[in-house]
Amino acid sequence: MSAASTLSAAAAPLDLGGWQQNHLAQVEQALSQWVGHGAPAGLGEAMRYAVLDGGKRLRPLLVLAAYQAVCSGQPAPCAWHDAAALRAACAVELIHAYSLVHDDLPCMDNDVLRRGKPTAHVRFGPARALLAGDALQAFAFELLTPEDMPIPAATQAALCRLLARAAGSTGMAGGQAIDLASVGLRLTEGQLRQMHRLKTGALLQASVLMGAVCGQAAPAAYRALSDYGAALGLAFQVVDDILDVVADSATLGKTAGKDAIAAKPTYVSLLGLERAQAQARELLAGAHAARLRSDLPDTRALAALADMVLSRPS
Amino acid sequence: MSAASTLSAAAAPLDLGGWQQNHLAQVEQALSQWVGHGAPAGLGEAMRYAVLDGGKRLRPLLVLAAYQAVCSGQPAPCAWHDAAALRAACAVELIHAYSLVHDDLPCMDNDVLRRGKPTAHVRFGPARALLAGDALQAFAFELLTPEDMPIPAATQAALCRLLARAAGSTGMAGGQAIDLASVGLRLTEGQLRQMHRLKTGALLQASVLMGAVCGQAAPAAYRALSDYGAALGLAFQVVDDILDVVADSATLGKTAGKDAIAAKPTYVSLLGLERAQAQARELLAGAHAARLRSDLPDTRALAALADMVLSRPS
Repeated sequence: MSAASTLSAAAAPLDLGGWQQNHLAQVEQALSQWVGHGAPAGLGEAMRYAVLDGGKRLRPLLVLAAYQAVCSGQPAPCAWHDAAALRAACAVELIHAYSLVHDDLPCMDNDVLRRGKPTAHVRFGPARALLAGDALQAFAFELLTPEDMPIPAATQAALCRLLARAAGSTGMAGGQAIDLASVGLRLTEGQLRQMHRLKTGALLQASVLMGAVCGQAAPAAYRALSDYGAALGLAFQVVDDILDVVADSATLGKTAGKDAIAAKPTYVSLLGLERAQAQARELLAGAHAARLRSDLPDTRALAALADMVLSRPS
Repeated sequence: MSAASTLSAAAAPLDLGGWQQNHLAQVEQALSQWVGHGAPAGLGEAMRYAVLDGGKRLRPLLVLAAYQAVCSGQPAPCAWHDAAALRAACAVELIHAYSLVHDDLPCMDNDVLRRGKPTAHVRFGPARALLAGDALQAFAFELLTPEDMPIPAATQAALCRLLARAAGSTGMAGGQAIDLASVGLRLTEGQLRQMHRLKTGALLQASVLMGAVCGQAAPAAYRALSDYGAALGLAFQVVDDILDVVADSATLGKTAGKDAIAAKPTYVSLLGLERAQAQARELLAGAHAARLRSDLPDTRALAALADMVLSRPS
């Protein structure tokens, strides 16, 4: 994952398929190498089940795309940059994976299908699934703070800070609490936006920012990437709401139509399908504008990922 | 919590009551100031319920005692040391509190009484209790990585590293997974010790080490404090097993006798009451020996806490 080699032809259109395949392979290999080893009593197996062999890995790809965009504006990166970016990419995926495990539990959504497989609690029982989720969250922070690598402490601390905030009560967990409390209610568009900003947007935005931190982005580029991440994060959720209505379970790899069944407020239930689709397009346009505002020489991967979010599932 | 003022008379016997009262007040105030604010939809209330107004705060006190012991061997501490130690003290308590919330859930121990109050899921429902636990874990790492304070990044990263390892699959969560898998089984003493080392010992030991990191302990003192923490951590669990047999629920503030009801292997079921008590005393002697080996001028608070562990409940 050398920034120099990957981004040698900044002017050429990006082969997203190739870029994605290459970087997905790195993420899958790293996750498989790191997750669940040494964990006792079937816990490691449950952790690996929850993380490996599934998922689009959008968050890790956002980390790596933002990292490479920042690197494209700088001289040759230090030796530790790639290692930090790969760890950050895996850490955000661990947080995402743990949140899915807990979200699927009987006391939450009680869902039985995820990424086309039985959910973790169906496979391992709810107690071990709960613990696997807890352990995955802790392991995300362990991955970000290696003792035996030359990743600067300032980078390690900044990555932990971003991830903790995005995962916690004023981020993902907070959004899930709003979600929980909103079943059967009619939210305003502002309230719905706030819920999704926290529930999904915070971790997607943090993914972009963690990549930026690994590349040591200058303040102006960091701010622009922050805007890109915020717009993309919200667009992702609007598209998610749309897909829940228009796609089937086989395509999604999870139970479709469950928002309506659960009487959850969504962009579609609030705005109708057409206006929700228009809003998704607007948000994506905002993401592209922010990306260009970063003034980084090569943001092709970020552009391609934004487009991918709108044209999911892929 | 100035090390200089607290430890001005190293030779005098420590007034543990006064020391404890003073430091407990600091921890309670800090937790109340930090936990759950800005969290939406009742999540903050559940987080505060799980953390505040209860608990012996052994782990925070261990952080502060180890920190002060290390400081007693050094020139006047830097301005950031006290702030780092207080954050570390609160962070370990957040991890402990979240583990209790999740441990009490219907899919785990299904317990209804904790610290003399209804458990979090009884009060807030299991879904919100689950999220509150998740958010508390994230917040522990957020507390350790403040952006606007002069705590060195190396200290922040080291604290996150210690806490993540102690909380995760090769620490507390791993121990809980062994516990879960051991119900109804007869473990060897070695297996039981390994379970407790992870389940309870890892976080207690990490508390001591995080205090040592905040005081920037020299390697020899750090190693001795690590041994102290390991011995104390195991002693704590042996005493816990004993109390589950000999104390009643009112004294414990949680359901007594539940190990036997759940057919969980314990030191008492394995060794009998007398041998378990002898082992607790031996482990405490080991903790004291390690404390003295640290060669720090004032380890009175560590000594008093070790004695307190043996003579619980207090």
